[in-house]
Amino acid sequence: MFESAELGHRLSKAEYETIEPKLRTDLLDVQFDLFEHKDFAVVILINGIDGAGRGETVNLLNEWMDPRHIEVHAFDRPTGEEGDRPPMWRFWRALPPKGKIGVLFGNWYVDPIGERAGGRLKKAPLDQRLSELNRFEAMLAAEGVLLVKFWFHLSRAGQKKRLKALESSPATRWRVQQADWDFYEQYDRYREVAEHVLRRTSTGVAPWVIVDGTDPQYRAVQVGRTLLERLQRRIEYVRKGFRPRQTAAPLVAAPDERNLLNALVLSQPMDKKAYDKALEKLQGRLALALRSDAFARRSLVLVFEGMDAAGKGGAIRRITEALDTRQYQVIPIAAPTDEEAAQPYLWRFWRRLPQRGKVAIFDRSWYGRVLVERVEGFCSEADWMRAYAEINDFEDQLVSAGAVVVKFWLSVSQDEQLARFKARESETFKRYKITPDDWRNREKWPLYEPAVCDMIDRTSTSNALWTLVEADNKYFARVKILRTLVNKLEAVLE
Amino acid sequence: MFESAELGHRLSKAEYETIEPKLRTDLLDVQFDLFEHKDFAVVILINGIDGAGRGETVNLLNEWMDPRHIEVHAFDRPTGEEGDRPPMWRFWRALPPKGKIGVLFGNWYVDPIGERAGGRLKKAPLDQRLSELNRFEAMLAAEGVLLVKFWFHLSRAGQKKRLKALESSPATRWRVQQADWDFYEQYDRYREVAEHVLRRTSTGVAPWVIVDGTDPQYRAVQVGRTLLERLQRRIEYVRKGFRPRQTAAPLVAAPDERNLLNALVLSQPMDKKAYDKALEKLQGRLALALRSDAFARRSLVLVFEGMDAAGKGGAIRRITEALDTRQYQVIPIAAPTDEEAAQPYLWRFWRRLPQRGKVAIFDRSWYGRVLVERVEGFCSEADWMRAYAEINDFEDQLVSAGAVVVKFWLSVSQDEQLARFKARESETFKRYKITPDDWRNREKWPLYEPAVCDMIDRTSTSNALWTLVEADNKYFARVKILRTLVNKLEAVLE
Repeated sequence: MFESAELGHRLSKAEYETIEPKLRTDLLDVQFDLFEHKDFAVVILINGIDGAGRGETVNLLNEWMDPRHIEVHAFDRPTGEEGDRPPMWRFWRALPPKGKIGVLFGNWYVDPIGERAGGRLKKAPLDQRLSELNRFEAMLAAEGVLLVKFWFHLSRAGQKKRLKALESSPATRWRVQQADWDFYEQYDRYREVAEHVLRRTSTGVAPWVIVDGTDPQYRAVQVGRTLLERLQRRIEYVRKGFRPRQTAAPLVAAPDERNLLNALVLSQPMDKKAYDKALEKLQGRLALALRSDAFARRSLVLVFEGMDAAGKGGAIRRITEALDTRQYQVIPIAAPTDEEAAQPYLWRFWRRLPQRGKVAIFDRSWYGRVLVERVEGFCSEADWMRAYAEINDFEDQLVSAGAVVVKFWLSVSQDEQLARFKARESETFKRYKITPDDWRNREKWPLYEPAVCDMIDRTSTSNALWTLVEADNKYFARVKILRTLVNKLEAVLE
Repeated sequence: MFESAELGHRLSKAEYETIEPKLRTDLLDVQFDLFEHKDFAVVILINGIDGAGRGETVNLLNEWMDPRHIEVHAFDRPTGEEGDRPPMWRFWRALPPKGKIGVLFGNWYVDPIGERAGGRLKKAPLDQRLSELNRFEAMLAAEGVLLVKFWFHLSRAGQKKRLKALESSPATRWRVQQADWDFYEQYDRYREVAEHVLRRTSTGVAPWVIVDGTDPQYRAVQVGRTLLERLQRRIEYVRKGFRPRQTAAPLVAAPDERNLLNALVLSQPMDKKAYDKALEKLQGRLALALRSDAFARRSLVLVFEGMDAAGKGGAIRRITEALDTRQYQVIPIAAPTDEEAAQPYLWRFWRRLPQRGKVAIFDRSWYGRVLVERVEGFCSEADWMRAYAEINDFEDQLVSAGAVVVKFWLSVSQDEQLARFKARESETFKRYKITPDDWRNREKWPLYEPAVCDMIDRTSTSNALWTLVEADNKYFARVKILRTLVNKLEAVLE
């Protein structure tokens, strides 16, 4: 969930000054348009980690937008009047009418997250509350309210740095109190709870937007652009006569163009000798783990995704070499059969789930929904938007039933892919591996990149993490995959 | 939830024999059409009370439909193969492909209801499971699956009668075991759990259809007609190019035309003397209850609905006479103001919620959404279909916050309404009370009747019951209202 936000994004002052004036003008234009037509109301939720710039963002919005049509509501402990009524009453009071924007700072997510992180709320009652909130937000969306939910994030190190910085200056020292340091101590717990809450409440009608809160310029531009795009898209939909509920909010690209994929250093060193040695050791550990008594009560689901020629097949063979043929199945996923196409898209994966004690290795997987189907337009935006939550639910069910789920994205550079394509064409026994489709897909690289980043951000969960594999060097990639897998298995089976 | 199903519906053998042949032919036609075009898959869920005819209905469907395109799956305890995989795996295996119908007998609702009724599952984990099921069904619906969920119901007395009848014949005696009687002992608990589960999982995309299971002929026709109508409507939507998710299933009229309203005896005896005496007593008890210390921590929300001239105003005055002016507010609901129309429809009720220790009396209410707005087409079918769950959520929040919610439907006959309209026209000081709108609404009576019955079935919950008031005699109606209110208050405040 927080993968992209922890990359360390920033925008220089100069970059910011180029972007800001135009962004402000555009925001004002769209705000005026909204107010004039009164098609719908906008509710902006501001949540996140202490010190990640929530307050500053609210101030900025006030400064950027026409203050007559934007209203900020900050909620603290309920007042007497509020406490005398159902908990949601104070939020209903603050809802903006059609044509206006309401910013809710300290909203309906604060208590569930805080109480759960503080240990005052158990898992089941938390989920109960979250499903109430989902129903509430679905109702608002069905009533035509545009919900934009921002989560301002800081990594653990980022939060510490921020507190230190505030303390070091006499002008801001007063802003840091013992409570802030106490909160910092709980960071990991809070992050874990926040991840769960965000995942459960990131719905097709109201997805969360996670903002890296480290750099003020970056943060401001990401918020401004997201807001602008959401408003423009909704207005477009409304004017074209679509019902608002039909719009699935787009996922927004990072203003600094830094993303999970381009942040990787794809060519990593490893020579044949080191590879052979590591491979032997890891395969031995893998065989041992899968033959253990503990594994007899579990199962293993492996997912391999990556661009063509990223080395999925080779990596899979290095795993299966260590296994008993009766224990595993490699399941290559291509276009669905007729029988599969007549069913919900997850059906063909459900039917291939391994029994206890077995291993299923998916060479491509259910993630096709948010990769090839999104990119090629085989399904609608609403369909792939809802798929993130559906896939998370699916993997949760696997994990609850005892499966270990390990997912790899093999990342190869465009140059390396080209070299491999050419090599394949010239080697007789590999020629079948290269088709016109591969060349066509290669041209869609720029469309796959955001799809992959969104996929990782929205489906890398504590239950089923994604591992990004730098795959220009096959030796390095295979060893990283085996090591990740073996470490995970040993930790789980311990 | 079970109000209509506990009315005691039946169809004679002769009636059944007139209806059946045509119904079977129509069902076969639509099944063939579905199979030929393969637009979508149909999943029929069969659930309900023991002895309410679930098995018989499954047999009947098999007999009526073309068996090549309908598949029945009965689930019992998970087999070894099933237990080795996530719990939902066995249901995924049984999903029908597009063009076919799957009947799931003993499906994903059996465990949550059984475990909760048996005390093995707490409230919060139950709700957690139900929201998982809602997400699962929403996903199926979004994938184009038509879900038809039947709940076969028997009243407590009905279940006893059925068991006795089986026992009395040597041919069926073997079918009744001690377990059945044990289950009967738990009837009330089971009914309460079932009500909660049905309410939580009756969604716009997959509402429950509750079938009175007492009479085999009635039951068969209701199931057959519901299925036919759902299939026809879905086919129509699909062929017209609407997305399947846009269809909200209609609520089906009872085949025997007996409903909650026409089952009432509207003119009940009560003379002025008895009325005066009862009124004085009840008003005294009401005043006492509302001045108690216990009430200072609660609030009271009263809802009055009914056709024009049903006597809502008069009944409300008999309540307010007993109250301190500072303690209550009467809130007449007419068309929304501009400010209200710019907000979600529940907003104008949230803003009028009473504080602790206070009383809010709504003369018409949020139920306008499923009454006038439905009948007049002021909102779409999808909008009023989702309103039932939204209203239940709203009232749950009121009750959780300590409010007592009491709802009255005042039922007046068409003749009595006419007499009152005429009387109003002739009395100078009441002439303002009759407008052309009233005459117009009167003509829509046949449209209001099903809307009222659906409303009561779908929003009469253990938290906030509806009381139907026979209102042709004003004295009787006012006393019934006051008595219901006072009894409820005294029970809660005790």
